[in-house]
Amino acid sequence: MFFQTLTAALDEISEKVNYTMDSLLPISAGTREGKLLEAMRYVTLSRGKRLRPFLLVSSANLFGVGQESSLRAAAAIEFIHTYSLVHDDLPAMDNDDLRRGQASCHVKYDEATAILTGDALLTFAFEVLANDSVHQDAAVRVELIQAVAQAAGAGGMVGGQMLDIIAEHNKLELGEIVRLQRMKTGELFAISCEAGAILGKAQRLQRQALRAYAYSIGVAFQIIDDLLDVEGSRQETGKAVGKDQGRGKATLISAVGIEQARFHAELLTEQAINHLAVFDNRADCLRELAKYIITRYN
Amino acid sequence: MFFQTLTAALDEISEKVNYTMDSLLPISAGTREGKLLEAMRYVTLSRGKRLRPFLLVSSANLFGVGQESSLRAAAAIEFIHTYSLVHDDLPAMDNDDLRRGQASCHVKYDEATAILTGDALLTFAFEVLANDSVHQDAAVRVELIQAVAQAAGAGGMVGGQMLDIIAEHNKLELGEIVRLQRMKTGELFAISCEAGAILGKAQRLQRQALRAYAYSIGVAFQIIDDLLDVEGSRQETGKAVGKDQGRGKATLISAVGIEQARFHAELLTEQAINHLAVFDNRADCLRELAKYIITRYN
Repeated sequence: MFFQTLTAALDEISEKVNYTMDSLLPISAGTREGKLLEAMRYVTLSRGKRLRPFLLVSSANLFGVGQESSLRAAAAIEFIHTYSLVHDDLPAMDNDDLRRGQASCHVKYDEATAILTGDALLTFAFEVLANDSVHQDAAVRVELIQAVAQAAGAGGMVGGQMLDIIAEHNKLELGEIVRLQRMKTGELFAISCEAGAILGKAQRLQRQALRAYAYSIGVAFQIIDDLLDVEGSRQETGKAVGKDQGRGKATLISAVGIEQARFHAELLTEQAINHLAVFDNRADCLRELAKYIITRYN
Repeated sequence: MFFQTLTAALDEISEKVNYTMDSLLPISAGTREGKLLEAMRYVTLSRGKRLRPFLLVSSANLFGVGQESSLRAAAAIEFIHTYSLVHDDLPAMDNDDLRRGQASCHVKYDEATAILTGDALLTFAFEVLANDSVHQDAAVRVELIQAVAQAAGAGGMVGGQMLDIIAEHNKLELGEIVRLQRMKTGELFAISCEAGAILGKAQRLQRQALRAYAYSIGVAFQIIDDLLDVEGSRQETGKAVGKDQGRGKATLISAVGIEQARFHAELLTEQAINHLAVFDNRADCLRELAKYIITRYN
């Protein structure tokens, strides 16, 4: 498959993964606890960039993986990303009332529902990954599940969230800020690309190249996100801005300043593109994405 | 393996699963986010009855499953049970400050840490289940992961928690109370027994019998728990009591009264033992457990 432009490719995968998530999510049968299923749909099917699904499907395409397979795995990763946003927005965490241009889950519903919605989405992600529609080979599915759990857990995304909370009340060392970015954002980006390689039974070198690429753009993306928080508008980002500063939260920007942070993000983008040297022009959409992430801030 | 008495068997499996959980849980390497790993250990390695591990290991023993296998699967289920308690105790949920005789996670640490500790434990459970030490056959592991995710998710435990929260502010129909009990407690009990059957590649009839047994004692257990909440002491139960009544929460007791609820629990216990008729005396410890659950209230 060849994409004319990155935007068209992003839109296409976004639409397909939305459709996949929609068809996977259970529908409320009118029971009282159906509120939970409604909330799961509310947070998942809102507008989102679907960068992780894009990474997964684009990586899987390099190895000729069927799209039903890659889209289901992509939906699972997006469920995990979404649950992390729902919990992150809670009053006890980042206390954000706006997400993807709409009221956060705990504002639209209530805190208890938001906690349970996150729990249900995380659990559902593993149910989806265990299903044989993701891959006919059970060994591939357990490998994927194990890698996703590692990326999303205490040694990855959740550990990064913990460090992020700590950063609100403590000055972090530069090394800790780098680790925070790697864990909080880098790990889920990395597993998104790696999942494509796992599904395609790729060679070790290709798998490592995709991981390295994804780490780099993940961290670049996080830096740009922090820059937008400092300088962007609520309308542009679809969420509250200026909150990190207001809370005195340690980010790369507070540590090294706007210019240096921006330079670092640009350098990471170059590195990311370099890691893709082992792939031919079928990886162009991944190369384009790396450039796109930087231009979000320009 | 033959157990002299149920208490000895409960103690033995409890000790072994504690050891397994201890050896599986990562150790804080002195990083700031190591607080998360400490909290995971704090909530998991506290005293607990370990009923679900007992069900899993006892069921697996019926089919000659090796104990490394069944103990790891049991640890995963206990991680899931523990995460649900950590989230359930949060101020936005049941707001309990005492759990298993010690300060709840959000009291000992803080709310953000408790939310993330639950998230990390749930994720870790799937990482453990995906590991080949649980079973050499990847197809068995994905079957287990899928069944566990279904039992723990929106159609099971988390859905039951949602209904439980709703029960605080709404009068539930009797049918809804029964569904609440089945989802909130029954499903995780059922998968605990079923997991033993999955690991042992049991016949369908045996697997169904174990599920039916576990549902019945799960619901009986929930009723006894509610009875203890009404009449027990904080010391006996290791958690705050009288809270359901204080909050006007709909339980089977508020719907049909103490005597009827107790009678129903006794009947369920009898039914549970009946379901085990397909097994010989190797299932005696499961029969004993059913009786034990009722005697907690006597």
